[in-house]
Amino acid sequence: MSRIWNFSAGPAALPEEVLQQAQAELLDWHGAGCSVMEMSHRGKEFMSILDQAEADLRELMGIPEQYKVLFLQGGATQQFAQIPMNLLAGRSADYIVTGSWSKKAFKEAQRVGNVRCAATTESSGFTRLPVAEEIRLDPFAAYLHVCTNETIHGVEIPAHRIADTGVPLVVDMSSHILSRPVNVEKFGLIYAGAQKNIGPSGLTLVIVHRDLLGMAPLTIPTVMDYAVMAENGSMLNTPPTYGIYIAGLVFQWLKRQGGLEGMAAINDAKARLLYDCIDQSGGFYTNPVDPDCRSAMNVPFVLADAELDAKFLAESKAAGLASLKGHKSVGGMRASIYNAVPLAGVQALVDFMNDFAKRNG
Amino acid sequence: MSRIWNFSAGPAALPEEVLQQAQAELLDWHGAGCSVMEMSHRGKEFMSILDQAEADLRELMGIPEQYKVLFLQGGATQQFAQIPMNLLAGRSADYIVTGSWSKKAFKEAQRVGNVRCAATTESSGFTRLPVAEEIRLDPFAAYLHVCTNETIHGVEIPAHRIADTGVPLVVDMSSHILSRPVNVEKFGLIYAGAQKNIGPSGLTLVIVHRDLLGMAPLTIPTVMDYAVMAENGSMLNTPPTYGIYIAGLVFQWLKRQGGLEGMAAINDAKARLLYDCIDQSGGFYTNPVDPDCRSAMNVPFVLADAELDAKFLAESKAAGLASLKGHKSVGGMRASIYNAVPLAGVQALVDFMNDFAKRNG
Repeated sequence: MSRIWNFSAGPAALPEEVLQQAQAELLDWHGAGCSVMEMSHRGKEFMSILDQAEADLRELMGIPEQYKVLFLQGGATQQFAQIPMNLLAGRSADYIVTGSWSKKAFKEAQRVGNVRCAATTESSGFTRLPVAEEIRLDPFAAYLHVCTNETIHGVEIPAHRIADTGVPLVVDMSSHILSRPVNVEKFGLIYAGAQKNIGPSGLTLVIVHRDLLGMAPLTIPTVMDYAVMAENGSMLNTPPTYGIYIAGLVFQWLKRQGGLEGMAAINDAKARLLYDCIDQSGGFYTNPVDPDCRSAMNVPFVLADAELDAKFLAESKAAGLASLKGHKSVGGMRASIYNAVPLAGVQALVDFMNDFAKRNG
Repeated sequence: MSRIWNFSAGPAALPEEVLQQAQAELLDWHGAGCSVMEMSHRGKEFMSILDQAEADLRELMGIPEQYKVLFLQGGATQQFAQIPMNLLAGRSADYIVTGSWSKKAFKEAQRVGNVRCAATTESSGFTRLPVAEEIRLDPFAAYLHVCTNETIHGVEIPAHRIADTGVPLVVDMSSHILSRPVNVEKFGLIYAGAQKNIGPSGLTLVIVHRDLLGMAPLTIPTVMDYAVMAENGSMLNTPPTYGIYIAGLVFQWLKRQGGLEGMAAINDAKARLLYDCIDQSGGFYTNPVDPDCRSAMNVPFVLADAELDAKFLAESKAAGLASLKGHKSVGGMRASIYNAVPLAGVQALVDFMNDFAKRNG
């Protein structure tokens, strides 16, 4: 068996150690005589898996007691509606649009209620962050929504750019959660689809301050009411049990990497290696994003000669470097270098890119 | 490794052959160099898995062209809201309540709009079906909702009791879908949580006639609009890819059992064996459900002497017979004997029950 270097934007690479453990335990988890997939979600075996996953996540991210951790379904796209359904309570909310995903979140929220675009960088092709003078905040907003890492445009909001605006901050962290330490107390609600840095698709993580619970109208679906899900420990109905189990294995793997500090050091080294390769290619490769907001997780780049794109993709694939094609809205290439892509994988990519540039430059 | 006989109501037993194949392919699916969990949902490998799963399901159930097959998230509980959100269109709908699950579906629909209880057997303890004279149908209803197998009460509606009432029939088949052939054309919409007879939890199957698409108001979450999901081949957003893969393996396993005709013969033999054991125990065990609507999938039974319950559970567990405790609302025991529980498992249970009755009768 030969494993590829997987640069998919999501579903994405998982740590090989996690997959090996899942494989070993697949028919019999810890002597239970059945797979995790076959366990009653209310039995003590699965409850221990769920409790351990939550405890490890709380430890990794430093999640304070006053925040609830919810393991939900439906992806970030369902959250785009679920957030205003729970939090608007007849008021308005502000959205900062810095890429395709925050734009989708804003559009979906418009179906639900009254929301405002407080700033957008669309006219700059989503390659920068808005400056303070461009942001027009409503001080009475129910919340302010941001996406701190735009998967498609490769734009990441650094922690020091996240200021307290006086209203609860709701943040889509889908594509960089767990990639580095974060101060959870800055946020009212953090959400993330699992399929980038957490586990398999079909699991959605929500971390929500208890002050934001209990505002949903009684007309929304019960499964979408955060307060009901929090009261029921994410088990109003059957949760995605196998996804929670894999996420738990990922959390344990993260602890073995030195937690989020350890992971950040590795991720910084990976990102530096790849951006240096691009920036030092003499224009053969370019990344259009402002250096102060380049993503350490999703690195889009274009070849100066787009006629070489097909050759680059075919040769990189043959070299075991998979899923490098850029999103259709941006073009070119994109390397997603999530937690589970090791430095060796990025080194293999950079070696290929340098060699390809030399042969075709 | 010693595998238990797993009588869990859900998440429930999966075919051992399916788990073995999943284990073998876990780190490398068909030479792709990665796990199914790590694949882009829009890549050709996963698309082939999804397309094959849908084709096999259509073949097994004989699903006509004019029905869409959707692979969704959120479980049957989310469908309880999603169905009226999509289908009410300002009208009313009828619900027949034959157990806990149809009662929950009715209550959830009341949050969404105007729905009526057309019949309920609650005063009979949900141990029978309503007779024709008890059912008061609205001929102008948007749909009529039934649950054809009540997991908790062990009540199954036989196919010959399902008549055309002139309005679209919406049916929760979560706990007996794929257990025997069904005439899909009788129904407007069939739905099922996966975690009983399909695959792991976190996947929800919806089979819907195209005439029922396109009635949802623009204010519901986009991911909950059946028409949008149908247009996007269940991929408006990232679907639960690993659950779909396991479901696909289950569909292939079902074809090797002789399809749903073959499965029905096995299920009938299993159910006969267990009900005969109960009925011939001289009152040591009893099942309260009318013989004409006893479930072939979920078999609740009580011991005449409830003081023996704890001993029964402890000894059965020690004998490798797991998850036999009845639901708290019914008490006693429940054996869920879904497709993946083989005749040998039911034989082992019956042998234990006969021996236990002899020793304690």
